Amino acid sequence: MWDRLLVDCNIATFEESPGNPLGLIENGAIAIADGKILRVGKRTELAGFRAGRVDALGGAWVTPGLIDCHTHLVFGGTRADEHAMRRAGASYEQIAETGGGIASTVKRTAAASDEELLDQSRRRLRSLMSGGCTTIEVKSGYGLDPDSELRLLRIASELGSGEAVRIVPTLLALHAIPAEQQDRRVHYVSEIVDKLIPAAAKQGLATSVDAFCDTIAFTPAEVERLFKAAAHHGLRVRLHAEQLSNQNGAALAAQYRALSADHLEHLDDAGAKAMAASGTVAVLLPGAFYALQEKKKPPIALLRKHKVPMAVATDCNPGTSPLLSPTLAMNLACTLFGLTPEEAVAGMTINAARALGLAHSIGSIAAGKQADLCAWRIESLAELGYWIGLPGPARRIFNGVDS
Amino acid sequence: MWDRLLVDCNIATFEESPGNPLGLIENGAIAIADGKILRVGKRTELAGFRAGRVDALGGAWVTPGLIDCHTHLVFGGTRADEHAMRRAGASYEQIAETGGGIASTVKRTAAASDEELLDQSRRRLRSLMSGGCTTIEVKSGYGLDPDSELRLLRIASELGSGEAVRIVPTLLALHAIPAEQQDRRVHYVSEIVDKLIPAAAKQGLATSVDAFCDTIAFTPAEVERLFKAAAHHGLRVRLHAEQLSNQNGAALAAQYRALSADHLEHLDDAGAKAMAASGTVAVLLPGAFYALQEKKKPPIALLRKHKVPMAVATDCNPGTSPLLSPTLAMNLACTLFGLTPEEAVAGMTINAARALGLAHSIGSIAAGKQADLCAWRIESLAELGYWIGLPGPARRIFNGVDS
Repeated sequence: MWDRLLVDCNIATFEESPGNPLGLIENGAIAIADGKILRVGKRTELAGFRAGRVDALGGAWVTPGLIDCHTHLVFGGTRADEHAMRRAGASYEQIAETGGGIASTVKRTAAASDEELLDQSRRRLRSLMSGGCTTIEVKSGYGLDPDSELRLLRIASELGSGEAVRIVPTLLALHAIPAEQQDRRVHYVSEIVDKLIPAAAKQGLATSVDAFCDTIAFTPAEVERLFKAAAHHGLRVRLHAEQLSNQNGAALAAQYRALSADHLEHLDDAGAKAMAASGTVAVLLPGAFYALQEKKKPPIALLRKHKVPMAVATDCNPGTSPLLSPTLAMNLACTLFGLTPEEAVAGMTINAARALGLAHSIGSIAAGKQADLCAWRIESLAELGYWIGLPGPARRIFNGVDS
Repeated sequence: MWDRLLVDCNIATFEESPGNPLGLIENGAIAIADGKILRVGKRTELAGFRAGRVDALGGAWVTPGLIDCHTHLVFGGTRADEHAMRRAGASYEQIAETGGGIASTVKRTAAASDEELLDQSRRRLRSLMSGGCTTIEVKSGYGLDPDSELRLLRIASELGSGEAVRIVPTLLALHAIPAEQQDRRVHYVSEIVDKLIPAAAKQGLATSVDAFCDTIAFTPAEVERLFKAAAHHGLRVRLHAEQLSNQNGAALAAQYRALSADHLEHLDDAGAKAMAASGTVAVLLPGAFYALQEKKKPPIALLRKHKVPMAVATDCNPGTSPLLSPTLAMNLACTLFGLTPEEAVAGMTINAARALGLAHSIGSIAAGKQADLCAWRIESLAELGYWIGLPGPARRIFNGVDS
């Protein structure tokens, strides 16, 4: 006897098989027990089995639950004022002069109580969940000093308690240099590397460490110090790389077997090759490209050519991507970057799971994986890339349970 | 005794007063009776009154219910296949050769039963409603012959029955020439002008008539024939104008006192001046601009200079703007066209009401108007332009009732 049998649906399992790269199953069925997928196949193949409960999905398309593998969900306040200033023609410099940018969010995050941060972040979390997310990565990064970063990681973990969602906290250790430390770069990086990394590892607050490598942020040498410390403490790494310029960050990330390199607008052939060789996922963030009205797109053809797995994420953050919808992230990836709808959905399922190092347990519909599923009232999978601002799935199942 | 009193909120009434163009009221209150607004003001000004029910809104921002003044909501099927083809590099010509474009939607709309059309359109309707819309304009236009167009107008009206929303059907009389009538343009236009217009007017199925004036659609002379017939039958007019080229459609629309001219990417100074003089609203449709990845933006500075009222709408349609979210329409208008957040919200409230000829009864929060309201959990009004893919309001009130 199974817990549950889902029938009357088409399934995109994202389990590749010869001649069926998306693992499509028409008129399929999914058996669920103890929160996991027990079996998936054609309805006829699962005909002889009985279940405690049989759910007919009315011809819906079922995909893995969506995975948002890159967010900065925990922050205080908004930067709506900057957004309005930018639209009215203000330059970044002018905005910075008025105290804007990351510094403004760091200040408001510090000023907010844990309760306030949880309340504000939970609204964003629920928006992503209602859009179909069952797993959401949450970076720290608006604390900037060790204690504040650890606080944000604790809040990120707490965010998930009582919610039908899996939170994956990431320590964004090198995000920006605080204004008062601008002339003490070496000291600042040492404090992060020597104090924050061991503390986060010891407290088990994150399984991976992230950094922002760019001219306005940290140098490859600084990032490498961080990556060495992370490796030493058994933490995987990720990197914000090649967003505004080419710093060879992707190659550096690959060298340290990074789970992902993210943004990648300025990625070159060498970087893509290195990523392919190390199995590093390319995380595409079209929300930031859109909000900043950038012109240079990530080199999708290059990523395809080298078979680098592509993930798509919201990058939800108050400054450059206040994006609250995973379905819109998929449409933006198709419209702005030219991904196929299938690539976009793979980007928020199996490849997003890879970017989190969790492809063994989530990201596709296969026996043994968590039963995280979305049932969509659509005629074809392509509609997930087509609609602009599609509301969430008709049903969202987390660990085998509707929510 | 009033039906209801809303308190503990900030209000953007969109009733202009000297020094307060948005009619902002901090710590305001709204009294509602019989589905209409009885009084609005500072909480202290409404202190002495009693109500059957008092609702504290927890500091929410209250705006008029959103009005989507330009949609093509009733259609059969999707064009997700074309979207995917376009992303994969197919040209419009290639898509047309495979039977794509409007013709494909016309075919699928004809093939769908009334019940199927209602079911598919209702999903889109509810998406717009959950995003905050309390009034939605719905155009016909995928019938192309008189009987089919009348059918779609009837379905548009029926769509609203049982739903907490006001539907405003518009007869899109000249949308595209059917392939088999390409060499009988005069005959085709005559049939629309001489049969469809009188029938729609007689049956009371629409209060305004719309057309698509462009090189790939109808000429100004053809549109003028239509406008004359519309005026003769007491119907107001609107026009899809200057989207892909400048046909002086805006000036033609203004000449016939059109409620609105829509799209306007190629609008020139003379057109803007004419619109200002006739009180014709400029309806901006950033969803189509986005989906088609157009480069030429509507001349916002020109519209501001001549004080042409600007509305914003989703243009929800299967080909060029499959946009399902009014909050996203506002963000697109800010991000892509440079509207201020306040202009964007005015564009989906008071100016959208003007574009529908309904500003006497909806579109702002003023005594005597319908009590159509949205309460948003935001800190500042600017957030309505800032978030990308913001879910709908915390509360949506239609004719005085939560829904």
